[in-house]
Amino acid sequence: MKSEPVIAIAGVTGAVGAEFIATLNKRGFPVRKLKALASRRSAGRTVEFRGGRIEIEELTERSFDGVDIALFSAGSAVSRRFSPVAVQAGAVVIDNSSAFRMEENVPLVIPEINGRRIREHKGIIAVPNCSAITALMPLWPIHQRNRVRRVILSTYQAASGAGAAAMQELVESTRASLAGEAFEPRVFPHPYAFNVFNHDTRIDLETGYNEEETKVIRETRKIFEDDRIAVGVTCVRVPVLRAHSQSITFACERPIDEEEVRAILASAPGVKVIDDRARNISRCRSRPRARTKSWSAVSAGT
Amino acid sequence: MKSEPVIAIAGVTGAVGAEFIATLNKRGFPVRKLKALASRRSAGRTVEFRGGRIEIEELTERSFDGVDIALFSAGSAVSRRFSPVAVQAGAVVIDNSSAFRMEENVPLVIPEINGRRIREHKGIIAVPNCSAITALMPLWPIHQRNRVRRVILSTYQAASGAGAAAMQELVESTRASLAGEAFEPRVFPHPYAFNVFNHDTRIDLETGYNEEETKVIRETRKIFEDDRIAVGVTCVRVPVLRAHSQSITFACERPIDEEEVRAILASAPGVKVIDDRARNISRCRSRPRARTKSWSAVSAGT
Repeated sequence: MKSEPVIAIAGVTGAVGAEFIATLNKRGFPVRKLKALASRRSAGRTVEFRGGRIEIEELTERSFDGVDIALFSAGSAVSRRFSPVAVQAGAVVIDNSSAFRMEENVPLVIPEINGRRIREHKGIIAVPNCSAITALMPLWPIHQRNRVRRVILSTYQAASGAGAAAMQELVESTRASLAGEAFEPRVFPHPYAFNVFNHDTRIDLETGYNEEETKVIRETRKIFEDDRIAVGVTCVRVPVLRAHSQSITFACERPIDEEEVRAILASAPGVKVIDDRARNISRCRSRPRARTKSWSAVSAGT
Repeated sequence: MKSEPVIAIAGVTGAVGAEFIATLNKRGFPVRKLKALASRRSAGRTVEFRGGRIEIEELTERSFDGVDIALFSAGSAVSRRFSPVAVQAGAVVIDNSSAFRMEENVPLVIPEINGRRIREHKGIIAVPNCSAITALMPLWPIHQRNRVRRVILSTYQAASGAGAAAMQELVESTRASLAGEAFEPRVFPHPYAFNVFNHDTRIDLETGYNEEETKVIRETRKIFEDDRIAVGVTCVRVPVLRAHSQSITFACERPIDEEEVRAILASAPGVKVIDDRARNISRCRSRPRARTKSWSAVSAGT
């Protein structure tokens, strides 16, 4: 790869697409050229990038000629169709969808946990589910020292996880609710204004888990490389625009106490413990609790 | 007690006060006379009751002469000050605050669970914390057949639990947020519009639990009459106007499977299982999940 790669973003108009651009900027990531790809209806519009404006092109089978890195976040169907094309064209695909996460030859990577797996890629590197990332960041450093046997996880998931249209639906339905007007949901199956509901993915009729919950269970086992870990998870959508929160309780193989967990998390990359008990402030990345052998935390991710 | 009791409501202008009146009406509860009591600043206003209007009186030491049943929901300080006065005057106090819940000679009653304890009252009967009631209603019938050893509970608590002013703060702060205007919280310590936060009660510096969480733990043990039950609870406020939800995972003494739990809950008083997996509908009183020995549910109470 050349030192200044050509980067393509598939799904550049979405909520994650905007974050891809923001992160390239924030990190001063070297970019020789950025290709902004989206569906046909966005083609011709422009996005801002490093002081200039880039015209959005329709995502097609020919979009990846000369591309070194392709960032995908346009849903599983788009990833399934175009990622192999991008790989064929010589690009490395970093895929934010669930399309390839459980495939054996696709590394499923949280850099702070298993970044070494990136080297094993065959063209596609998968980004885990947002709830899995949020939960596993603080659990991993503990797991390394004292195996986590069981995790009970409840999520408070924001609209952002379902994309820009979902965030818009939260705003519009709340505005309608306050005005006493009717609102017909388009993105979610339930009213979202001042409401919480079971995560809006299909429920497995057998297990009773929705797809989001199933992803967290499977992805935890793949990322931790531990098929024995028991994960019980309840994924709930809350009327928040951005940032997921979680309540996490876990049990380790051997007893573990608060001081030990605090010490482990204090040096964990990407984890910040904010536990201002006197002021009841817990808008934090991870909030540990006193309990022998099991712990509870509220984590907030993006 | 005469067949048509005189009833006093202390805190009649609050969110629970309004529910007291609604419930008396809904059940056609016999009422010879209703005394509507509140703080001085509400005195002189009126409340509607059974077609007429009742003038609100200031709550004083002399409010309870001739009262048979006094329903209190005006906060712990008011209950502590005026409940003994009401008892002295011959009334039976049903107290919705936390003032007397853990006192040994005060029955802490969920009618479907331990209604028989009502007979033991010495003048005051305490109503448990809302999160405790919501969690214990489905757990109790299971506990009776196969002891519940451990409960992990995460709440999604509405504004209503903090009273009418809190509900108003959610509406007003959300309206301000949508208009891009600043809003200074008065009731809650954190911004509430499109936000979740740790329950707004004081955190015990030692245990890390907020007061709401401590209440759930202690009240569960008192109501179940089981000091061994381990309760891990995370109480979170979500931007919802009414109705608390919970994610509950529990472990029993002996293995228990989904069919057994379903059968138990099907005949549990006050519990309704709605589990429409094909349509992903779980706005329900209790949603069981497939798991051996442990279970998860989303319960919604008021």
